[in-house]
Amino acid sequence: MSLEIPRGFRFSTAAAAFRKQGRDDLALLVSDVPAAAAGVFTTAAFKAAPVLVAQAWLAKKSSARAVLINSGCANACTGDQGMKNCRDTLNMVAKACNLDPTDILPASTGVIGAQLDMAKWEGAIPSLAAGLGTKTPEDFAKAIMTTDAFPKFASSSLRLAGGEVRLVGMAKGAGMICPNMATMLATVLCDAKVEEADWKKMLAAAVEASFNRVTVDGDTSTNDTLFGLANGASGVAVAGADLALLQEALTKVLCDLAYMLVQDGEGATKVIHINVEGAADLADAEKVARTVGHSQLVKTAMYGRDANWGRIVAAVGRSGARFTPKDVRVTLCGVEVFRNEQPTPLDFDALLKDALAGRDISIDINLGAGQGAYMLLASDLTHDYVSCNASYRS
Amino acid sequence: MSLEIPRGFRFSTAAAAFRKQGRDDLALLVSDVPAAAAGVFTTAAFKAAPVLVAQAWLAKKSSARAVLINSGCANACTGDQGMKNCRDTLNMVAKACNLDPTDILPASTGVIGAQLDMAKWEGAIPSLAAGLGTKTPEDFAKAIMTTDAFPKFASSSLRLAGGEVRLVGMAKGAGMICPNMATMLATVLCDAKVEEADWKKMLAAAVEASFNRVTVDGDTSTNDTLFGLANGASGVAVAGADLALLQEALTKVLCDLAYMLVQDGEGATKVIHINVEGAADLADAEKVARTVGHSQLVKTAMYGRDANWGRIVAAVGRSGARFTPKDVRVTLCGVEVFRNEQPTPLDFDALLKDALAGRDISIDINLGAGQGAYMLLASDLTHDYVSCNASYRS
Repeated sequence: MSLEIPRGFRFSTAAAAFRKQGRDDLALLVSDVPAAAAGVFTTAAFKAAPVLVAQAWLAKKSSARAVLINSGCANACTGDQGMKNCRDTLNMVAKACNLDPTDILPASTGVIGAQLDMAKWEGAIPSLAAGLGTKTPEDFAKAIMTTDAFPKFASSSLRLAGGEVRLVGMAKGAGMICPNMATMLATVLCDAKVEEADWKKMLAAAVEASFNRVTVDGDTSTNDTLFGLANGASGVAVAGADLALLQEALTKVLCDLAYMLVQDGEGATKVIHINVEGAADLADAEKVARTVGHSQLVKTAMYGRDANWGRIVAAVGRSGARFTPKDVRVTLCGVEVFRNEQPTPLDFDALLKDALAGRDISIDINLGAGQGAYMLLASDLTHDYVSCNASYRS
Repeated sequence: MSLEIPRGFRFSTAAAAFRKQGRDDLALLVSDVPAAAAGVFTTAAFKAAPVLVAQAWLAKKSSARAVLINSGCANACTGDQGMKNCRDTLNMVAKACNLDPTDILPASTGVIGAQLDMAKWEGAIPSLAAGLGTKTPEDFAKAIMTTDAFPKFASSSLRLAGGEVRLVGMAKGAGMICPNMATMLATVLCDAKVEEADWKKMLAAAVEASFNRVTVDGDTSTNDTLFGLANGASGVAVAGADLALLQEALTKVLCDLAYMLVQDGEGATKVIHINVEGAADLADAEKVARTVGHSQLVKTAMYGRDANWGRIVAAVGRSGARFTPKDVRVTLCGVEVFRNEQPTPLDFDALLKDALAGRDISIDINLGAGQGAYMLLASDLTHDYVSCNASYRS
């Protein structure tokens, strides 16, 4: 797969040894010109310093030039000192790269409750600044990894009335979230010229259809952040009917990244596609999808390659959604397993043996109560998940 | 510990080989006289046949003579045939024991989606009926076990104005629930003479303070059932101020059983006592307790003996409860670990090493936002939980 790289963005990474030696743990990208900028942030009550700073920047203006991310330290639960440190890192990078600090959007991921090591920042920033233009989105994605098993990036290009535009996204996250090693972080870049207000709406819609529809363990982080920058460097202005095409491409890039997050869920061996249809409304469909997707019993059954329709039905039954029990149908990997309040008279174990051994598992639930639908991607719950999270700090 | 057995109840068990050979899997208790009877049932939409039958009996009258429980087959998701089979088992036992079938409250636990084996019932009922009076509450508790590691029973006696009354409770459940091997079942017996309406209220209040405040994996079952019978065989009528004393004793017995359920949570090594105080109201306190108690990351950290305050704080932060972040304090096993939005400057690992190795772990959370309080018992999440549930059917 060749990567489409939007024009007018330069990338750099550097090794500051924040937590581990011998790997890049600082990532910077700079747009040649101010870009329309938007952010989507954690809804958690305890927000990390970089989240508060980025929110403050984007509350004042809807444009930015750069994104600066470190791994190894989340700068969360660090009080006033953490806020000062975050702003100081932006001042240092701004000076080295000839930018305004309020044009740099910060994000951090790693251990929480620890302060940034400012000496290490100071030592690494010269090579970070000098390297601009020498690295790729893949390098960027590698530098922001924590417990991730692989770097996550995706790209797309599309031809619009005014010419070709390109999109690229980079993300990290493995565990929807590990508040210690923390966090889902993502950045999506586009070289189309889009009105700031349009870009903000498009990003929100794309997140709703992608990152908001995945779950690894139901936990959210102090640091979850998504940035979107559209710098217009393609010279292609997007408006009218082209907005829908760009929306589709943007959503697709974020869906690709979101899929990778679930695939790389801590210890995960499966990506479970939960499709709910026939709900009384959207809210009911989402309730059912999330109850099934968060059920430890369903998640362990999928890990065990077990056609355990009973656990799916039990989760549907306690979701709080409205339906008549006899109207509910459940289909597992294409085989209808439950109908009329009873298992269907099929030999599930034989029929589903191969399908359940695969990576992608589908659970289709029809409530027979209306038109509401929702799709959620979930990981399974495995021995490795427990190992990773029971011994993370040691 | 000597067991207090309420007067006027007889117990019996029998081996029908519903699922396994060589163990009792049928349990019956009969009161000499009609007892005030109440039930609390699963709120799941898919209810097992015995739940529907017991609810129908108790909707018509608030008294009963007997409780009949089988393990090995849940008789859930079994349609009309399951309803008929359930009523047929009651008819057979009623005939053998000279009872009215509508005086017998049924419950089942075990595999769901399979029909009762009526030939095995027929074969076992004569010895079940003949054995009445030869068994104990402990035998009863053993016969209703499924994946339980130990039988669960607790008793109490108290002296009231009119004399001594006794209480005994028996329960099963290991996993708050495994919808396959299914279910929390409990029965509490009392020999006080209590008005039916009073008894019903007392049982509901006791459940709210006990079984409703424990969680193993957040799943609920098609079969969850609690029965309470008060037969008056002590000759002690309870009214007025004595009602509060009996309530206290009843709640204590159910709390003892609920603790055992968490202790025996599938694969559990810990009982986590989550105490939330200072919430804006009760609902907020419960939100925080349940978000922490259901967090896979908190549960794995406790399994790993990890003083991981960050995961607790993250769960508090996404609970949806109202508070000011700087007012939140978190104390783990008596050591304050979080205050003023930051970890306290203590060496948690050294201070908490011994406490975190113990079975009972306390997490105290003060939101500093009001008077709301809630207590929840939760189990940890372990490798054995995953093993038990990933390979249950195989």
